[in-house]
Amino acid sequence: MEEQKKLAAQKALEFVKDGMIVGLGTGSTANYAIHLLAEKIKKNELKNILCVASSSSSEKLAKELSIPIISLNQLYRDKTPNIETQNPQLSIRNLQFAILNSQLIDIYLDGADEVDKENNLIKGGGGALLREKILAQASKKFIVMIDESKISDNLGTKFYLPVEVFQFTYQSEKYFFESIGLQANLRIKNDTPFITDEGNYILDVKINPLDNPKELSDILNNRAGIVGHGIFTNNFVTEVVVGK
Amino acid sequence: MEEQKKLAAQKALEFVKDGMIVGLGTGSTANYAIHLLAEKIKKNELKNILCVASSSSSEKLAKELSIPIISLNQLYRDKTPNIETQNPQLSIRNLQFAILNSQLIDIYLDGADEVDKENNLIKGGGGALLREKILAQASKKFIVMIDESKISDNLGTKFYLPVEVFQFTYQSEKYFFESIGLQANLRIKNDTPFITDEGNYILDVKINPLDNPKELSDILNNRAGIVGHGIFTNNFVTEVVVGK
Repeated sequence: MEEQKKLAAQKALEFVKDGMIVGLGTGSTANYAIHLLAEKIKKNELKNILCVASSSSSEKLAKELSIPIISLNQLYRDKTPNIETQNPQLSIRNLQFAILNSQLIDIYLDGADEVDKENNLIKGGGGALLREKILAQASKKFIVMIDESKISDNLGTKFYLPVEVFQFTYQSEKYFFESIGLQANLRIKNDTPFITDEGNYILDVKINPLDNPKELSDILNNRAGIVGHGIFTNNFVTEVVVGK
Repeated sequence: MEEQKKLAAQKALEFVKDGMIVGLGTGSTANYAIHLLAEKIKKNELKNILCVASSSSSEKLAKELSIPIISLNQLYRDKTPNIETQNPQLSIRNLQFAILNSQLIDIYLDGADEVDKENNLIKGGGGALLREKILAQASKKFIVMIDESKISDNLGTKFYLPVEVFQFTYQSEKYFFESIGLQANLRIKNDTPFITDEGNYILDVKINPLDNPKELSDILNNRAGIVGHGIFTNNFVTEVVVGK
């Protein structure tokens, strides 16, 4: 398994070129990629790399390995957007343009907890799902690195769905899922509720295999009490590399 | 204007009945409603009322006026949901049921900053948009109390759109809006960035009149870096009462 993860990370690193802004994922496979990236930078095989991290833990690791890293706010602070629209308006067309135009990260390297046949993902086992999704949205390419055990026919077959909720209203969201018969467990670590980098709780929801991840993701996104969830639809994903 | 706000609050109070769980809004009109509610409880004209507040400021006011108040978590903690589905699954149908089944607040009373002809709203002038939307979603009825000045043909004609964003990535969301020519001002209070009850920043986005609030709301909801925004589509709204 560990060998497969390492192999996937190696394959993913081939997509990284000189001068790129690289998003660093979170978790065991992402950690292999971060180590490999640090080596390549050290050996001067990759030049002018700048990184953004998806969690405090991957930021810490990158800094220990002397990888040049900046925050999301720093990345955007000094850039002036190209305004191409003639018609400044909050319209559907303009928003779709804004999504693409705001992708300042060249490539994002991260693992996943489950991947279906159409490259939809469940992520969030490590608890960094929110920042990971922000990075995936901000990236021109997202390379997903997995070992074979993560592949399944439908999402929800192997993995609980992590749902990030505000502390002050986590009970209402627990109730929300339980009202349709789905177990929603508050994630516990060291005998206390696990708290995300943004200060929220996580519910691990026992879903059964999902038929339409896109529509379900939209409904969950429309729920105000939910900060984020682990469904990453395939429109985020450029390539899935499997270590084997 | 103040007289109109008071009148709207009076009309809204007529919807409140004995034994109801009442959601308390935030802002000047909501404050009138909170005062009127406190009077009615004191005079025993309303019995067995229990309230939930949409902000720390309305919670404080309610407590000062001896209104019985509980937190959102308390409201849901001891209730066991009726599970009516035979098929526990994360499906579109079940999620739609879960939304209705999780509405434990009987009535939510709140103002709005702008209301269009079809009862779509912009809210968030007071900065409590996120918790306000959570309460609106959790309520069987939402009575919107406004004075005439809040009515407009299209949302965005009179009011900036408040967008709540994570502190660690507010620059990317500012860039997102600016890339389509929309001014996005970080809200400032007392010379420092305004911080919401949940610890986030607010961007006030100068939008032009909106054509399709529902679709735009969905696109903004799908953006991971946005915590919440001030578009409340009319499916939240039961009734708009205008003081005049």
